[in-house]
Amino acid sequence: MTDQDYQLFEQRQRARGIDVERVKSRLKSLKIETPSWGFGDSGTRFKVFRNRYAARTPYERIEDAAEVHRLTGLCPSVAIHIPWDKTDSYDGLRSHAESLGVTIGAINPNLFQDDAYMLGSVTNADVTIRRKATEHLLECVDIARQTGSRDISLWFADGTNYPGQGDLRARKTWMRESLEEVYGALAPGMRMLIEYKFFEPAFYHTDLADWGMAYNLACKLGPQAQVLVDTGHHAPGTNVEHIVAYLLDECRLGGFHFNSRKYADDDLIVGAIDPYELFLIFYQIVHASEDACADVRSTVDNIAYMIDQSHNIEPKVEAMVRSVLNVQTQYAKALLVDHAEVRAAQERQDVLGAEEAVRKAFEFDVGPLLRVVREEQGLPVDPIAAFREGAYNGKIKKRASSFKG
Amino acid sequence: MTDQDYQLFEQRQRARGIDVERVKSRLKSLKIETPSWGFGDSGTRFKVFRNRYAARTPYERIEDAAEVHRLTGLCPSVAIHIPWDKTDSYDGLRSHAESLGVTIGAINPNLFQDDAYMLGSVTNADVTIRRKATEHLLECVDIARQTGSRDISLWFADGTNYPGQGDLRARKTWMRESLEEVYGALAPGMRMLIEYKFFEPAFYHTDLADWGMAYNLACKLGPQAQVLVDTGHHAPGTNVEHIVAYLLDECRLGGFHFNSRKYADDDLIVGAIDPYELFLIFYQIVHASEDACADVRSTVDNIAYMIDQSHNIEPKVEAMVRSVLNVQTQYAKALLVDHAEVRAAQERQDVLGAEEAVRKAFEFDVGPLLRVVREEQGLPVDPIAAFREGAYNGKIKKRASSFKG
Amino acid sequence: MTDQDYQLFEQRQRARGIDVERVKSRLKSLKIETPSWGFGDSGTRFKVFRNRYAARTPYERIEDAAEVHRLTGLCPSVAIHIPWDKTDSYDGLRSHAESLGVTIGAINPNLFQDDAYMLGSVTNADVTIRRKATEHLLECVDIARQTGSRDISLWFADGTNYPGQGDLRARKTWMRESLEEVYGALAPGMRMLIEYKFFEPAFYHTDLADWGMAYNLACKLGPQAQVLVDTGHHAPGTNVEHIVAYLLDECRLGGFHFNSRKYADDDLIVGAIDPYELFLIFYQIVHASEDACADVRSTVDNIAYMIDQSHNIEPKVEAMVRSVLNVQTQYAKALLVDHAEVRAAQERQDVLGAEEAVRKAFEFDVGPLLRVVREEQGLPVDPIAAFREGAYNGKIKKRASSFKG
Amino acid sequence: MTDQDYQLFEQRQRARGIDVERVKSRLKSLKIETPSWGFGDSGTRFKVFRNRYAARTPYERIEDAAEVHRLTGLCPSVAIHIPWDKTDSYDGLRSHAESLGVTIGAINPNLFQDDAYMLGSVTNADVTIRRKATEHLLECVDIARQTGSRDISLWFADGTNYPGQGDLRARKTWMRESLEEVYGALAPGMRMLIEYKFFEPAFYHTDLADWGMAYNLACKLGPQAQVLVDTGHHAPGTNVEHIVAYLLDECRLGGFHFNSRKYADDDLIVGAIDPYELFLIFYQIVHASEDACADVRSTVDNIAYMIDQSHNIEPKVEAMVRSVLNVQTQYAKALLVDHAEVRAAQERQDVLGAEEAVRKAFEFDVGPLLRVVREEQGLPVDPIAAFREGAYNGKIKKRASSFKG
Repeated sequence: MTDQDYQLFEQRQRARGIDVERVKSRLKSLKIETPSWGFGDSGTRFKVFRNRYAARTPYERIEDAAEVHRLTGLCPSVAIHIPWDKTDSYDGLRSHAESLGVTIGAINPNLFQDDAYMLGSVTNADVTIRRKATEHLLECVDIARQTGSRDISLWFADGTNYPGQGDLRARKTWMRESLEEVYGALAPGMRMLIEYKFFEPAFYHTDLADWGMAYNLACKLGPQAQVLVDTGHHAPGTNVEHIVAYLLDECRLGGFHFNSRKYADDDLIVGAIDPYELFLIFYQIVHASEDACADVRSTVDNIAYMIDQSHNIEPKVEAMVRSVLNVQTQYAKALLVDHAEVRAAQERQDVLGAEEAVRKAFEFDVGPLLRVVREEQGLPVDPIAAFREGAYNGKIKKRASSFKG
Repeated sequence: MTDQDYQLFEQRQRARGIDVERVKSRLKSLKIETPSWGFGDSGTRFKVFRNRYAARTPYERIEDAAEVHRLTGLCPSVAIHIPWDKTDSYDGLRSHAESLGVTIGAINPNLFQDDAYMLGSVTNADVTIRRKATEHLLECVDIARQTGSRDISLWFADGTNYPGQGDLRARKTWMRESLEEVYGALAPGMRMLIEYKFFEPAFYHTDLADWGMAYNLACKLGPQAQVLVDTGHHAPGTNVEHIVAYLLDECRLGGFHFNSRKYADDDLIVGAIDPYELFLIFYQIVHASEDACADVRSTVDNIAYMIDQSHNIEPKVEAMVRSVLNVQTQYAKALLVDHAEVRAAQERQDVLGAEEAVRKAFEFDVGPLLRVVREEQGLPVDPIAAFREGAYNGKIKKRASSFKG
Repeated sequence: MTDQDYQLFEQRQRARGIDVERVKSRLKSLKIETPSWGFGDSGTRFKVFRNRYAARTPYERIEDAAEVHRLTGLCPSVAIHIPWDKTDSYDGLRSHAESLGVTIGAINPNLFQDDAYMLGSVTNADVTIRRKATEHLLECVDIARQTGSRDISLWFADGTNYPGQGDLRARKTWMRESLEEVYGALAPGMRMLIEYKFFEPAFYHTDLADWGMAYNLACKLGPQAQVLVDTGHHAPGTNVEHIVAYLLDECRLGGFHFNSRKYADDDLIVGAIDPYELFLIFYQIVHASEDACADVRSTVDNIAYMIDQSHNIEPKVEAMVRSVLNVQTQYAKALLVDHAEVRAAQERQDVLGAEEAVRKAFEFDVGPLLRVVREEQGLPVDPIAAFREGAYNGKIKKRASSFKG
Repeated sequence: MTDQDYQLFEQRQRARGIDVERVKSRLKSLKIETPSWGFGDSGTRFKVFRNRYAARTPYERIEDAAEVHRLTGLCPSVAIHIPWDKTDSYDGLRSHAESLGVTIGAINPNLFQDDAYMLGSVTNADVTIRRKATEHLLECVDIARQTGSRDISLWFADGTNYPGQGDLRARKTWMRESLEEVYGALAPGMRMLIEYKFFEPAFYHTDLADWGMAYNLACKLGPQAQVLVDTGHHAPGTNVEHIVAYLLDECRLGGFHFNSRKYADDDLIVGAIDPYELFLIFYQIVHASEDACADVRSTVDNIAYMIDQSHNIEPKVEAMVRSVLNVQTQYAKALLVDHAEVRAAQERQDVLGAEEAVRKAFEFDVGPLLRVVREEQGLPVDPIAAFREGAYNGKIKKRASSFKG
């Protein structure tokens, strides 16, 4: 790729009426949060392959996240998971992060790995377990205060494996009661992001099974509650970008957990299996960003883009860089859609014209554009290569010395 | 089957603490609406096989529906579809029905077979088409007044086939605007039932794609708007009984369109592919019927049970009888669940005990019970045999004389 | 797009070691068969929207197909469907086609629209219906001789809607017996392409439900029998490119029916929903085209690429042009994969490196390349625009005069 | 339940022409193999909840399996998993089993938990890893000789997570080469059962993804290779009983891994989610057991029925008893189908009659029948209650003393 590539790209886009400087400016303000747990080991129920270079402590995980930000300029914050990232001093953790140029992002409670939660956490038939779960959520709100985090990100593994195992409606009530209490503890400006999931680890019913259940709950709780869309948490065939557009229209889309899937919640690198779907999600977001309604525009501005993947066989840091670059790539393409052209085709009922107006943006090669954006930001033009050759990679490899495979 | 069968059945259930007289009483008050269009020809996109005995006019369709009621005692009303059942005199149609012992049930508008609706009806980018669609809906409200119908049952084929084809959020707004107007025209006591569908005939996005979209719209419209669950309109793997329980808990479940599916919206005879799912739906309903909350109980009491199937290869009347018997069978089984036993197992966290308490009700043979219920109601004990041997079957066969295959 | 675009494209590819002249040469020899039925009206079970400009006769359909070839240079043959394209003189039809610069391609029997086939054709429990079906297949072999067609393309709608409806194993035997007879009638050089389908129009079981059943049958019949992969005929989540690679490895992939789907057999424009999947299919094909085994390479050379779509709301000719361009685009991208780079990454167990080596080819913009290929072939550089502005479009619009909507 | 229940049951069945003594005899010869790993802890990727009473050693697992057989009379053999059940002396393990009244059943190699297999075992690009995998398979053949086992049961986790990661066709070749060598090592009378799986733990492609790939491989290997159907390893909507019938017809169905699923490979108790599907599988088996072809009948006689479930939240022994009782229940119902009645309806093209002839068998309550069968075999009439109250349960609870939760 040369300067000429970019000049040609710019000419073509200008000829189409695209404001390339504005595109670059928007690309430069894209922020994608990485998850601390994405730098540690994970796996399937069959096997967790231990990566000899994986981060082992909250501090190392934040160092990895900072490296991803250093390489890409896209990832100024890192989500943490309690208790995986539990520490004696959240001030200390916060300072560590800030010294590396990143901040602590969303706080993610864990209500699925304590033995008590086998049959449910905030939905457990046993009131003492529900209490324990609520206390943990309240603790996480408290941690958010200490870390300066805006978002509490809630995913519940709660559900049942067999018909009859649980009282579906009672569990619904218990969850609402717990979250009402937690909602009441939020500081002004904090948000509660409510995630849903089609299935797994529960196999008969999941208490928050789809966007509708998360949305309804958020509405009952209040304006600080929003829906979190994990791209892999849907039934086969679900039109995810439709849900995104719908939630934006209701001003209830709080954020994303990005990852990729072919079958179930495969948790692969976002954009690796169906890149067009990721593009179409961003197309809806970019479209809503120019809505007449200020609340819709504000909702777009506050979307928390977060990676949530389970790298079973990939090197961790490199996989994370690949993930954020894939997100950036599809966002860049979505910024090239000419919305006036789409609207004109829609208005004249030209199905193929409207389809082409969207698809053509996907077909551009945004490589030259992203290269220039990186150059202008003083970032490595090839972040993966920079990582492979860089000092940090060497540093990680020293971790292996303490590894017992 | 003999009297002895029933006596033994009764003894066993009494020994379990089941109030058999109450079960019988509830079975006798079950009402399932049949659809007029279920007595005419239907098919797949590949072929409509013409049934030489299928009803050809609204009057004949109501006669068929009345025969199903005569045979089963379960079907005192028949839903109609406008314009398929359009007539010069709805008074006349109503009298015809009443003379045969049935009433006109839900009014079903049709917004998918006029050429104007190719790219949407109430969601069309063309305001004149949206107006036309709204007028049709208002006409249906008016027909409901004439026929004495309580429910307007809305299914929209609206959706798009390609990314970019339509503005998803504008279409959402247009639909709400149309339905607000229609809602305003409802008489007190009338209900608007809003159906959703995962896909088909639209293949990229459906404007009302899931229960959440129908529910949210109903909430915005007001208390006379309710959700209609078509059992075949879900993504693969969806837990339908969970949605049923959820909507009951929100007092927003207005009714069902019953049918059966293995793949998509196969529209097979309800209960023919996964009878346990149908049982579990009724288990949730029966459970909610004893809820502490009067609104939930009232919601249960007002559920409109309706058949909506497309019999492509089956003889029409017989298929309809089979369908309502299947519904009755699973409802009968659900009435045999001992809820105290389930609850006790749930409370002691006994997963297998709770599962068994539900499943065991399914495993009973309710044949002897249903036989006695029919006898006590003066109905044929074997409705299918009664139909096959009956005079009406002979009458239908005379229709063939005018048939050109 | 300018010459400069192409020059830069060429430079970049040369720098990667891609033989651009060879890529262009392979693109110029790509042949995609269009289906005569793709130019007529089609729809869903809910409605066939009549297109006032749709072709009405076999002759008009071939004229439309010839226009697609004139615009794209990609479609030198057209598949016909019997009896939809039945004619008194296949010689006449063949001459008509040849006079327009195209040939008659695959012969497609129809065993699903005769009333006799309601419960099966070659799998019907009634031997006289099985005979009738076999005779129709033999007639199609005879037509193939007259039209000079190489391929008989078999899709069976055969299946059942209910458990018990048919004897699954007897039906399997009956189908094999019928096809053995038809196979025996093939001329040397003719091929029987056997298509499979997951479901629809049968909703409980389909006699040829997956590639395994089609493949096993082809193996039993002999070397002239091959499997036909319709991209839309799979269960949700199925890895179609894996099946393609598998069948190529067994030298049993005879051809494709291309179309696109999000849910079931949606029959949308190929490449419109998940373009990456189409690219990955071609990646497997291009990879196999360089196999050490001559039989595998020969199988690749003989793949029949065919469009099979149901354009419900799109203008017919334009939709077909869009479809073949989408196929050409993804084939072009697949030709840019550097297989040595992929293999090297695979061998050093570099998961992300191998993934990137494939994906990067997809991310190139092949617009400049395809423009030059078209110029060099003397074709319109923008086939859609050429059609919209061209004389043929005007001619089609005269068809409307005889249209009764 | 009383004697009267059974007498009435017998009368009704006799009246239908069912040979009740034959049904009882067939029920008494049903054999279902339990898996040693079903008595140990298992879980999801999110959490393995440790069961304080779970068996900890191969010896304890066989004791649990023997208890299930003692309670049900259905489970005379137990499958083992290498290396989970690795022992210094297979003679010792065999003697232990035999002393408890059971035998060692299928040998299950493990090619997914060694770090070497992260990117494949017999399909790994690294020949030394392929060699290691093949050696393990040969070791398992050797163990089978020592334990007197007939079946080697092969499940491969092999697959890839990303496009390009592996060479799909090379991997196919490598797997065949490995299995050819293992096949050559089988003793006469031994069988190799080849299992397939739609997805998981691989998320882009699985080397043996469906029955067709397992079947084709078995055919290439020879008559001692057969297909193993795991009921949970299919795409959504797949008609499993069709595959069962198909494989029986080809004399290539070697056995089952039974479990239950709603979404993916949920591994729930067989028969708990869709009992009708399990019944329909047995309907196909019972139907094939009376086939005119001796090879088909012999295939039925040699089916290895095995449980393969992952009990995440259930008590282990009780869950296993529940599982085998569910299998017995559906088999009993399938034995009540009147095949002559089905055939007659099929022949007169009576869709609803044929459907009813199958379904009615499912609707019988076989509780009285199974009670009498158990009594006649000297078994506990309520195996679950017998376990809960029995001495073995008390013994298991002593295991807890050494448990550290």
